[in-house]
Amino acid sequence: MKIDILSLFPEMLNGPLHDSILGKALDRDLLRVAITNFRDFSTNKHHNVDDTPYGGGAGMLLQPQPICDAVVSTQETAEHEGYSTGRVILTDPGGKRFDQQAAAELAQEDHLTFLCGHYEGYDERIKQVVTDEYSIGDYVLTGGELPTLVMIDAICRLLPGVLGNEQSAADDSFSQSLLEAPQYTRPAVFRGQEVPAVLRSGDHQKIAAWRLKESIRKTYLKRPDLIHEQQLSEQAKRFLAEIRAENL
Amino acid sequence: MKIDILSLFPEMLNGPLHDSILGKALDRDLLRVAITNFRDFSTNKHHNVDDTPYGGGAGMLLQPQPICDAVVSTQETAEHEGYSTGRVILTDPGGKRFDQQAAAELAQEDHLTFLCGHYEGYDERIKQVVTDEYSIGDYVLTGGELPTLVMIDAICRLLPGVLGNEQSAADDSFSQSLLEAPQYTRPAVFRGQEVPAVLRSGDHQKIAAWRLKESIRKTYLKRPDLIHEQQLSEQAKRFLAEIRAENL
Repeated sequence: MKIDILSLFPEMLNGPLHDSILGKALDRDLLRVAITNFRDFSTNKHHNVDDTPYGGGAGMLLQPQPICDAVVSTQETAEHEGYSTGRVILTDPGGKRFDQQAAAELAQEDHLTFLCGHYEGYDERIKQVVTDEYSIGDYVLTGGELPTLVMIDAICRLLPGVLGNEQSAADDSFSQSLLEAPQYTRPAVFRGQEVPAVLRSGDHQKIAAWRLKESIRKTYLKRPDLIHEQQLSEQAKRFLAEIRAENL
Repeated sequence: MKIDILSLFPEMLNGPLHDSILGKALDRDLLRVAITNFRDFSTNKHHNVDDTPYGGGAGMLLQPQPICDAVVSTQETAEHEGYSTGRVILTDPGGKRFDQQAAAELAQEDHLTFLCGHYEGYDERIKQVVTDEYSIGDYVLTGGELPTLVMIDAICRLLPGVLGNEQSAADDSFSQSLLEAPQYTRPAVFRGQEVPAVLRSGDHQKIAAWRLKESIRKTYLKRPDLIHEQQLSEQAKRFLAEIRAENL
């Protein structure tokens, strides 16, 4: 997969992109990322990229020309490299909700371009080049860099080979529509709190049952909206009924 | 406000923290941020911070000792500096939904500590030191650094003085429960698309009415869940009725 990021603040992106799982994926060529500062595409002699809003109001808006020209250029480069023009993603509060399913869908693409807005907003006409608008949540951020990094992280960890054998994306919360059960490691007793005895029992069947029940309990208590009863196994349905009775 | 961040990947945080609005807030002492690598608090001779899960399974879990000791230490430092022990925030898929209201609440605090999980999870007992669990959205990320940066960005732009006069947090999407109307800047015509004539009319009353109606239209079409009709002005209610009729 190739990812293009168009941003006025490339230095915001380098640290997060080169650390941890993403950095390893880049090192192993599982992923290519190109960052383009769309200020370089401004035809204005001062390389301005923003201007005041028509109709008045506070703040400066990103102009459509630098961004649209930058997208044309990065798409041409990608096509020369054998990628498709791909999808062009804008983060916007009115966009589709970005969730694990959206991450899985986008992970199927061979080329994604992310536009990072900044300042107080952008000219509506940049949407001429946008294929998808997403929102990562109902909060206001100062720019598109952080939501872009969040989306890239969620998408790229689903690419084949990015997570090592040591970790399975399928086990995570949301991937199975249930939150993960509580987990414990050394020491067996920490400041008076003991690891549940069942986890130290060596009885794998009991452990699996405990984990399933606690996973259902956590989901039922904290995110009941994630539980789709008809999709649960018979054992899971029994646990859910028990937990409901315990919490009447 | 003082913010402590406990992370194994401090270098992921520096770029985003020092650019843009957050960097300016740090430069002007409106905000203090201290990053602590909790690996430094490991009492293990190899400075390990993780171990295999009790009960088996893939992956390594963060142990409770380094994190809990690091929190005690950073809280002591903050208290010596005159801050409260404050709130200790963990990002977790089962946490409360982080939204603009949560950002506004947390912006009232004088000290926040963010714990960044990594690897495949953490020992449940780190919650001994946690006061608040938040989720920024229903997707799986490789670590707590990006959600921590997202939360800090959303919170800090609400602190007095962080946004300059040129920008008003109150105008943004979500702050008034409506999405912002489309915005336009130079040029008047871009690749065949013209700026709406009303925005160039100079008639401020008409412009305000257009913006309100388009704001309601965008919210109605994209995020109808955000509209609370009883909170709308009489004019806004009329516009909503018109938009409903147009979209029957």
